Formats: sequence, structure tokens, C-alpha cells
Amino acid sequence: MVVDVSLKAEILDPQGQAIAAALPRLGFAGITSVRQGKSFEIDFEGPATPERLAEIEKAASLLLANPVIENFTVRVVE
Amino acid sequence: MVVDVSLKAEILDPQGQAIAAALPRLGFAGITSVRQGKSFEIDFEGPATPERLAEIEKAASLLLANPVIENFTVRVVE
Repeated sequence: MVVDVSLKAEILDPQGQAIAAALPRLGFAGITSVRQGKSFEIDFEGPATPERLAEIEKAASLLLANPVIENFTVRVVE
Repeated sequence: MVVDVSLKAEILDPQGQAIAAALPRLGFAGITSVRQGKSFEIDFEGPATPERLAEIEKAASLLLANPVIENFTVRVVE
């Protein structure tokens, strides 16, 4: 499974802003916004059951994301 | 569009290993591996054309990922 963590919309993202400002200087026009996030690719024993999904979501909210400033989503990948 | 950047499989990921080691101590069993990556959510003017996709892929390989140690994928999201 993959946990995607991103800053909430109302939280400033200076690193993303720096990238958005650098892209036009490198010749990439038309970019309006860049937001940087983190991802965690988690492998586990056994199949991707709903119980496992709930466990990973709990781990994400405790350990991987800061719920004060970040949102996260969990998605199942091969 | 979202650019997902992850370390190549042969590159050590100490931060991911630390998370994988911490999860059992917090009561989450059965996790075999955690790999940390980065993601960049990029907004742009106009529709998601194949030309725009190619441009974002070029920007990703130049600016967002280090092709020596990292892989990246570009995916289109709403």
C-alpha cells in the first residue's frame, strides 16, 4: 500500500513555491502551482484486507502524517 | 498532475527502515518494508495534453528527481 501525505491547502509550502518559481527559469511555462508531499510505500505480510487497510490508516495518522498540518490518503497498489 | 519520486530499489533508505522498525513497537505487526518517497502536485494552465505530460516528465527528470538514485512516474489526477 502507499500512503500519500500532503500539506493542507491553508499551510504554506515554501519548497513547492521555490520549485514553481524555478520552472519558468528552466523553460517550463504555464505552471501555476507546485505542492510537495511525501509518500510511503509499505509492504506487509498477507493480502490487502480491509483490516490491514484500517491498520495502515491508523499508523499513518500516528506516525507518518501530522494531522495538524497534513492530510493523507492510503491507496492499494500492486 | 502528480510526480511520484522514489529511491531505486538498490539504494538504501534509512528513513524507511527506521519507520519499519518503529511500527512494531507501536503495535503494528506484519509490516515487512517501508520505502519513503516524495511527491509533487503540479497545477498548470490548460488541459492535460500529451505535450504537457512530456514537458512535466522532462521537468521531473531535470529538477524533481535525481536519475542516478531515483525513479519517477507522472500520473494525471483531477
